[in-house]
Amino acid sequence: MTVTLGKIREAQSRIGAHVVETPLHRAHALDRFLGCEVYLKLENTQVTGAFKYRGAISKILKLSNAERQRGIITASSGNHGKALAHAARELGIEATVVIPDTAPPFKASAIEQLGAHIVQTEVTERFAVSERMAKENGYTLFHPYDDDDIMAGQGTVGLELMAQHPSLDTVIVPTSGGGLLGGILTAIKESASGIRIFGAEPAAVPRYSESLEHGGRMKVESRSTIADALVSVQPGARNFPVVQKYADGMLKAGDESILKAMKMLLMEGKILAEPSAAVGLAAVLEDAYAPERDEKVCFVISGGNVGFDQLGQLENIRYDI
Amino acid sequence: MTVTLGKIREAQSRIGAHVVETPLHRAHALDRFLGCEVYLKLENTQVTGAFKYRGAISKILKLSNAERQRGIITASSGNHGKALAHAARELGIEATVVIPDTAPPFKASAIEQLGAHIVQTEVTERFAVSERMAKENGYTLFHPYDDDDIMAGQGTVGLELMAQHPSLDTVIVPTSGGGLLGGILTAIKESASGIRIFGAEPAAVPRYSESLEHGGRMKVESRSTIADALVSVQPGARNFPVVQKYADGMLKAGDESILKAMKMLLMEGKILAEPSAAVGLAAVLEDAYAPERDEKVCFVISGGNVGFDQLGQLENIRYDI
Repeated sequence: MTVTLGKIREAQSRIGAHVVETPLHRAHALDRFLGCEVYLKLENTQVTGAFKYRGAISKILKLSNAERQRGIITASSGNHGKALAHAARELGIEATVVIPDTAPPFKASAIEQLGAHIVQTEVTERFAVSERMAKENGYTLFHPYDDDDIMAGQGTVGLELMAQHPSLDTVIVPTSGGGLLGGILTAIKESASGIRIFGAEPAAVPRYSESLEHGGRMKVESRSTIADALVSVQPGARNFPVVQKYADGMLKAGDESILKAMKMLLMEGKILAEPSAAVGLAAVLEDAYAPERDEKVCFVISGGNVGFDQLGQLENIRYDI
Repeated sequence: MTVTLGKIREAQSRIGAHVVETPLHRAHALDRFLGCEVYLKLENTQVTGAFKYRGAISKILKLSNAERQRGIITASSGNHGKALAHAARELGIEATVVIPDTAPPFKASAIEQLGAHIVQTEVTERFAVSERMAKENGYTLFHPYDDDDIMAGQGTVGLELMAQHPSLDTVIVPTSGGGLLGGILTAIKESASGIRIFGAEPAAVPRYSESLEHGGRMKVESRSTIADALVSVQPGARNFPVVQKYADGMLKAGDESILKAMKMLLMEGKILAEPSAAVGLAAVLEDAYAPERDEKVCFVISGGNVGFDQLGQLENIRYDI
C-alpha cells in the first residue's frame, strides 16, 4: 500500500491554490427521508463539477517539464476526462481523452470544449486503447483511479471532512474503481478517527461487494446503469487493498432508488447531483444501511454534471412527502 | 420607524431554536457569469424552503394564549402561507391562508397538506378578504410583510450575514412588499456596517423603483411575472420608510433574465432556486448593477419552492458557457 496519510497531506499542499474547499452542508430537509442527520459534502461544486479535479491536478502538478511537453492521455466516462482537460488547459499541456460509449454526450462535448482531443471507444476497451496510444505517442497515462497520486488527491476530501466536522459518525462514498473511496479511507482511518466509512456502488455493477466477499479483485459483467460515472467492472489494483483493509462495508443501490435519491436531493435538498452522486442516499433509502436517528451521516455528493435533458428522467419518480 | 436592530436581535434569540442558520455559500462557478465573487445566502434551505419562516415564527411566538386559541389568518402568494401553516402546526394553532389566484397550485397544495384552511381569491382582493375574515372570526391577522415582528424575523438574515462574512461588499435582496429587504437593511445599516444593499424586483411590478423615484408609496399595475412570490403592487407602509432611508438602490429584471439566472443557478451553481429568488442575479445579468471583478456580492436566495413541472420552463433558456 503506497498511498499514505502523509502523501495525502502533501497533495493537499500541492493542490490547495487550485481546488475549492467544498462546503459540508447540513441538509435538514433530508433528515426525515433518510432517518438520520444528513450532511452533504458538495463536490458537485468542485472545479469542473466533480471531485475528479482533485486527483487530476494532484498528478499533473508532479509532471516534469519533459512530460508536460509530450502531453497526457486518459480514459474516462466523463468527469475525470473533464477534470484532466481543464487541468491540462490551465498548465498549457496537450491532453487526449479516450471516452467510452457509455458516457453521456454532454460530458464528451464538455471535454471537447476544454480543448482536449477526443477518442471514442467501447467501454471495455478504453484502458487498452489509452495504454496503447500512450506508448505510441510518448504521452503520460493518467489512469482515472488506479494511481497513487490520483488517490492522494481524492483523499483530500477526507482531510477536509475531518477539519469541517470532526464528530461525524459515518461517511458514505460513491464508488467505481475506488480512487475516491481509497483516498478518503486512507485520510480518515490513518488519522485514528472513529468515523465509519462505507462505499456505495450500483447494484448493476457490484465489483467491490463481490471482490470483498471473495477476498480478491473480481471482474463483474459490464452492465448499464443510470450511474454513468460508476461503470468500472473491477476494483483498481492499488485501490482494492486499501478498501479491503479499511472500509466498514460496501452498500448497493438499484437505478430506481438512485433516481429517487437524485430527485429528493433536488426538490427537497435544493441540490443538483448527478445520478452517480446519489448512490449513497439511494442505498440508505433501500435500507442497505440503517442509520440511527441521531447519527451524523455524510453523503459525498461526488459530482453534479447533469445534462438538462437528463432531468426529464425524474418526472415520473415519486416518493412520499 | 419601529423595527430596530435591537428588535431583530430579540427576534434572533426568540426564533433560534426553530430556524436553520442557512449557509452562506461561495459559488465559484458563477463568478464568470456575474463578473464578481459570488456568494449565495441559501434561504431555499430554510424550514419550509423560504426565508418566510423566520418572520412567521418570530410573530407567532409572541401571541398570547388567548390569541393562540382564537387562531390566525394571512394572505399569501405561497411561501409566507406555507411558513405560517408550518409554524401554526408546530404550536397547535388553527391557521387560515387566503391565496391569490396568481399562486402556483403546488404551493397552495403544500399549504393545505400542512393542515391550514385555504381560501382562494383574486390577487388584488387578498388583503381585504383576510382583514374581513380576521374581524369576523377573531383571528390574529398575519400580514406577510407590513408588520414589525415579521420584519424583525426576516432581519435575522442580515445578522447571520454579518457574522458569516463581515467583509462582504454588497448584498442584493429579492423584494416584493419589502419585509426581507427592510429587515436586512435595518440589521446591517444600524450595525454601522459598510455593506451596500440593493433590492431587486421584477420589471413587470416595479413598486419600489417607482416609489423611491416619486418619494412616496406608489401603487403599480398588477401584472403577471414568472417571479410569482414578488407580486405586491405597493410597498408596505412599515417597510417603505426603512427602504427609503437605508437602501443603496433598487434593481429591476425582466422574466427572461430571471429564468436565465434560475437556470445558471441550477446547472452551473448546482442550486435549485425558485424564479423569485433569482431576480438579483437576473438584474446583474441585465447590467442593472455592474459589480467590480473582486467585489464580494451576496445574492439572497430567498426560496426554493419550485414544482417539478416548472423546470420545463428552463428547457429553451440559453446562455453562453
